[in-house]
Amino acid sequence: MQASVHAAVRELEAEVGREALTVPLVAARAGVTPSTIYRRWGDLQELMSDVAVERLRPETAPEDKGSLRSDLEAWAEQFLEEMAAPTGRAYIRDALLGDPDGSNAGQCSAYAAEQIEVILARAADRQEDAPDAETILDRVVAPTMYRILFRPEGLDTTYVHHLLAGLLAPNDH
Amino acid sequence: MQASVHAAVRELEAEVGREALTVPLVAARAGVTPSTIYRRWGDLQELMSDVAVERLRPETAPEDKGSLRSDLEAWAEQFLEEMAAPTGRAYIRDALLGDPDGSNAGQCSAYAAEQIEVILARAADRQEDAPDAETILDRVVAPTMYRILFRPEGLDTTYVHHLLAGLLAPNDH
Repeated sequence: MQASVHAAVRELEAEVGREALTVPLVAARAGVTPSTIYRRWGDLQELMSDVAVERLRPETAPEDKGSLRSDLEAWAEQFLEEMAAPTGRAYIRDALLGDPDGSNAGQCSAYAAEQIEVILARAADRQEDAPDAETILDRVVAPTMYRILFRPEGLDTTYVHHLLAGLLAPNDH
Repeated sequence: MQASVHAAVRELEAEVGREALTVPLVAARAGVTPSTIYRRWGDLQELMSDVAVERLRPETAPEDKGSLRSDLEAWAEQFLEEMAAPTGRAYIRDALLGDPDGSNAGQCSAYAAEQIEVILARAADRQEDAPDAETILDRVVAPTMYRILFRPEGLDTTYVHHLLAGLLAPNDH
């Protein structure tokens, strides 16, 4: 049932646009009654939040570029590119807003933490020194997300390079 | 007109609760027609976003505690306390949600930047070395806001002390 309702949201969003979505419309497409959707999700915002989190799930592991620095750089550039795109911003807002218990926002952060753990495991295999995952969340993921949500002007890959330079070579400058 | 509509939202929210607010109810209390509100704000969400930003405006300058470190510590503790409280979280969500052009989210970040600039001007008067305001946004404000929105578990003042220790004494550990 969840899969067919999620699919109905994605199809209808592509066909009629986000603004025109309603619970009865989604229900009709998914072949369920509106009250089924209200019982399971409460309202359209909570349903949109669940769909957004599914869309924010990373599809592949971060690319292996041969070193911690280049792995983090490639991952952070892609994270910025995806999250700062209009679709990424819309998914983040949806994920945050129809999320009374905070579990969807927590899932978004868990996705980032999992990708970082993969990069850190590779660094450990290469016997590279590395900050821990929480530090990378604080120093790279958090400022990137903060800028996307609150201060997007002029945001580009220069910014994530600057964050990584501060994190990985604190004594170079 | 804006002031009376904002006041009507605040009064009604206290009396009937957030969930029961409607544009006609707000209009009646403010003594305007619903169409006046729709023309000026578009919908209830955009009105709530404007009201939220007003509520997030700092009422006073940061306290002068005699040094950069203690000024930043006191300010960051208060920022966390206010933003992580249920009302603070609700205002941030409202500010982000009904904000099609991003100007309200930008205003929230500008409030923080202005408070930090006051602290930095005092540090300059005391001839203290200090990071710049953008660095403080990246290293203190952004991770605090990221944790509040995405990863609130176990968040307390220990966390902002940890962020400030990393920022202000990078060679101590």
